[in-house]
Amino acid sequence: MSKSIVLLSGGLDSATTLAIAKQESDEVYALTFDYGQRHRKEVERAKAIADQLGVKEHKILEIGLDELGGSALTDASEPIPDYRDFETMKEEIPSTYVPARNLVLLSCALAWSEALGAGAIYIGANARDYSGYPDCRPSFYKAFQRAAELGTRSGVENHAAEIRHPLINMRKADIIKKGTDLGVPFELTWSCYRGGETPCGKCDSCRIRMKGFVEAGLDDPLSYDE
Amino acid sequence: MSKSIVLLSGGLDSATTLAIAKQESDEVYALTFDYGQRHRKEVERAKAIADQLGVKEHKILEIGLDELGGSALTDASEPIPDYRDFETMKEEIPSTYVPARNLVLLSCALAWSEALGAGAIYIGANARDYSGYPDCRPSFYKAFQRAAELGTRSGVENHAAEIRHPLINMRKADIIKKGTDLGVPFELTWSCYRGGETPCGKCDSCRIRMKGFVEAGLDDPLSYDE
Repeated sequence: MSKSIVLLSGGLDSATTLAIAKQESDEVYALTFDYGQRHRKEVERAKAIADQLGVKEHKILEIGLDELGGSALTDASEPIPDYRDFETMKEEIPSTYVPARNLVLLSCALAWSEALGAGAIYIGANARDYSGYPDCRPSFYKAFQRAAELGTRSGVENHAAEIRHPLINMRKADIIKKGTDLGVPFELTWSCYRGGETPCGKCDSCRIRMKGFVEAGLDDPLSYDE
Repeated sequence: MSKSIVLLSGGLDSATTLAIAKQESDEVYALTFDYGQRHRKEVERAKAIADQLGVKEHKILEIGLDELGGSALTDASEPIPDYRDFETMKEEIPSTYVPARNLVLLSCALAWSEALGAGAIYIGANARDYSGYPDCRPSFYKAFQRAAELGTRSGVENHAAEIRHPLINMRKADIIKKGTDLGVPFELTWSCYRGGETPCGKCDSCRIRMKGFVEAGLDDPLSYDE
């Protein structure tokens, strides 16, 4: 029986990734992090998404990345920047970058995979319509896979979990179409970095999402701030 | 000014590594994890060691690796095995292995290094007189370094922290001699996996330590269970 772990943030990409993992695995486990993100409401959304799509187990792990600092996404005294054009984004890593986040999250998922005997870890990383974070690039995942194979019991025994990033080269519009086909409850997802009552419609994450729905020719079920 | 982070568990190796880092850096930051280890008293020892040797800041980060399972070191219902001979240890990873632990710890240290602007991360890993854990091998650190360079802002900017493991090929006796020369307070260190009132003297970690002191011709300041 194939078991997989999905890193589920509560956003659109990870929800779609969960739906894909469900197609490809017999048993799916979801892992969400309460890491001091200011948009912590995504954690509640992750719970609702896991409930709706159905998983064998959903674990929420607390880790105080905010205590380590270095990001506007975990420090309420730092402003969240409004969206810049995509060319700028590609050249400059924004202040919403969280130091080594995907390394920390994947490492914890890898730990869980060894305890569960899970053969795959899914992450909804995207290196196309994204905020320019270095830990969303394919080269990073390849290097992480190598570290996982050398630094774990499962690696020594030649069955380290495979890191899968099925969305990595997709356009946001295509991710939304794919998620729609798979019945992803986009009304439950949360993308906004600001984490207010309703999404701000101005940060990178909101703008990339809004543009994606427009290009997909689909309605975003969320209402944005005026 | 050079800044370094030291992963400080409270054991003999990490305490010696802290003393080495202090010689090689202008400012040293210590990072300890309260990860659900049954020998949690090592966290208190780490505090005392950091106090005595002196660090710019000592951070204790909580992360529930016990919630992820897979180790006798984080599960009080699993027995801690007694010491086996070294040849067996090299061939078989013991049940005290904690899944992906050094990956998780280094990833968090890397996150902190980006916020601090620290150029080095020290870890007291040893691949000679050790429990046979895969995440203590040089090849793993090399692979981790690569992942760090590809998956972080500091890596993109060509100043990712360098992972340093000054003890990796040393015999335990030589680590003890080195620590003694550097004034490491070995009476404050804690090695025993069982985490009782006094060290058990029977687990891998106690036995490797005891043998090291004997071979170094020095007295271990700790008293062991009868």
